[in-house]
Amino acid sequence: MTDALARLSLNTATTKRWTLAEAVDGAARAGLPAVGLWREQVATTGLARSARLVRDAGLRVSSLCRGGFLTAADDDGRRRCLAGNRAAIEEAAALGTRELVMVVGGLPCGGQGHDRDLAGARRRVADRVADLVPHARDHGVRLLLEPLHPMYVADRAVLSTLTQALDVALVHPAETVGVVVDTFHVFWDPDLPGAVARAGREGRLGAYQVCDFTLPIAPDPLLSRGMMGDGVIDFAPVTSFVAATGYTGDVEVEIFNASLWAADPEEVLRTAIERYLRLIRPFLR
Amino acid sequence: MTDALARLSLNTATTKRWTLAEAVDGAARAGLPAVGLWREQVATTGLARSARLVRDAGLRVSSLCRGGFLTAADDDGRRRCLAGNRAAIEEAAALGTRELVMVVGGLPCGGQGHDRDLAGARRRVADRVADLVPHARDHGVRLLLEPLHPMYVADRAVLSTLTQALDVALVHPAETVGVVVDTFHVFWDPDLPGAVARAGREGRLGAYQVCDFTLPIAPDPLLSRGMMGDGVIDFAPVTSFVAATGYTGDVEVEIFNASLWAADPEEVLRTAIERYLRLIRPFLR
Repeated sequence: MTDALARLSLNTATTKRWTLAEAVDGAARAGLPAVGLWREQVATTGLARSARLVRDAGLRVSSLCRGGFLTAADDDGRRRCLAGNRAAIEEAAALGTRELVMVVGGLPCGGQGHDRDLAGARRRVADRVADLVPHARDHGVRLLLEPLHPMYVADRAVLSTLTQALDVALVHPAETVGVVVDTFHVFWDPDLPGAVARAGREGRLGAYQVCDFTLPIAPDPLLSRGMMGDGVIDFAPVTSFVAATGYTGDVEVEIFNASLWAADPEEVLRTAIERYLRLIRPFLR
Repeated sequence: MTDALARLSLNTATTKRWTLAEAVDGAARAGLPAVGLWREQVATTGLARSARLVRDAGLRVSSLCRGGFLTAADDDGRRRCLAGNRAAIEEAAALGTRELVMVVGGLPCGGQGHDRDLAGARRRVADRVADLVPHARDHGVRLLLEPLHPMYVADRAVLSTLTQALDVALVHPAETVGVVVDTFHVFWDPDLPGAVARAGREGRLGAYQVCDFTLPIAPDPLLSRGMMGDGVIDFAPVTSFVAATGYTGDVEVEIFNASLWAADPEEVLRTAIERYLRLIRPFLR
């Protein structure tokens, strides 16, 4: 691992065609110290084997994606949500990562389409986080609340700003509930400088994920994430805000993008490293 | 005009197939007191004739859409922006409306694609608003800053929240710079209750526009607006926040939607009225 890459992590969603074993191998060969994993891929590979593959390659798991989907309004949905998230907490612990990324879920769907009670869904997120805190604490895992871009508020995450995520986290210990800063989701936020500083002050900044916001918005808006430098985000200010908090954790490249998924993962990783070194690392201090 | 519709205005973008004359006639026949107009359509119809058509039908112009696109970074772009907006101010005055809706513009495009300096673009919005205030004041017109959904931050409006629009307005007289609340653009905002209350307190709430946020996001995201009741927005809380400020102005139905544009405008207006009476009016007090 070269020193220049000492904080760069490959989130394996970026190189979707690679198996977990291939992604770990690719990251290690490229000189990266860490990978961010997804539960689905860990399940396919096997939990113990996934942990061993990462360890044997000399890497760390920077975060596990993801828990969440906390907004169910009915008893059965609530029960399934808690069971699934407790399993995710245990998997994070088994993989040796402290950071479990939480995409909190959108408006629940019923027979009539989406429920429209946004305030209610937001209250349930706070309630379910509270329900999960003891299990997370017992496993030394931190629930990282991820605010998502407001275009996903209805179908994916009712937490839309970093401030809002910090407000939910506030009543819990900082070592058990934290937040994610993902450039795609927060770059537009006029309150970002203050919110990132607050996340640092409150000791809750658990992950910094990078990818670009590309235009036009992709036909599947979830895949509108682009390689750093291909979109409209200026990584200098966001990265500087993160660095100013004293954050010394990993910088995870996490990109969902149909063209990048169709490309050679080796090449995608090479480009990601080049862009990281040029657009992000200079501002990490 | 029936009393139940005394505050409902048809923004003519909703019934795009209708000429201005047809929209004015359709609104009058349906019992609406007002229309919201677009500059392009006014230009096609002629300014004096547009004003006369509205007046002769016994209607008012609730707002003129739109000025804005204030973010140009070069001298030539700045000059064109100011000239265009001064013309828009004069047109609003000629049409007898005080309210000029301002879509402030995204990141300017250069030879290399979008400029990425979001903070700089936001500063230029404040500067251009200041440049335009004297002309607006002299014509008795109010520049209504419209925060747009953050999915448009890069290509359409760098003002993404109502709070941000109010912060730009703050240094100017309330009768010359105001804000728009459009349900589509702001429903996701966790700070909405406080921001709408502030807009009322500061005397800046100049227009309330309604339409729904539909899923999935349309292939052209600008057309993702839907008929009230067809999407995920609960109109009760937003409308209640607006009503609680003492707002007694018009409620403009403004929908850009390919299916609605393909439908019979008469039918679209009938549905809009029915939805307004059911989903919005009960919360206007």
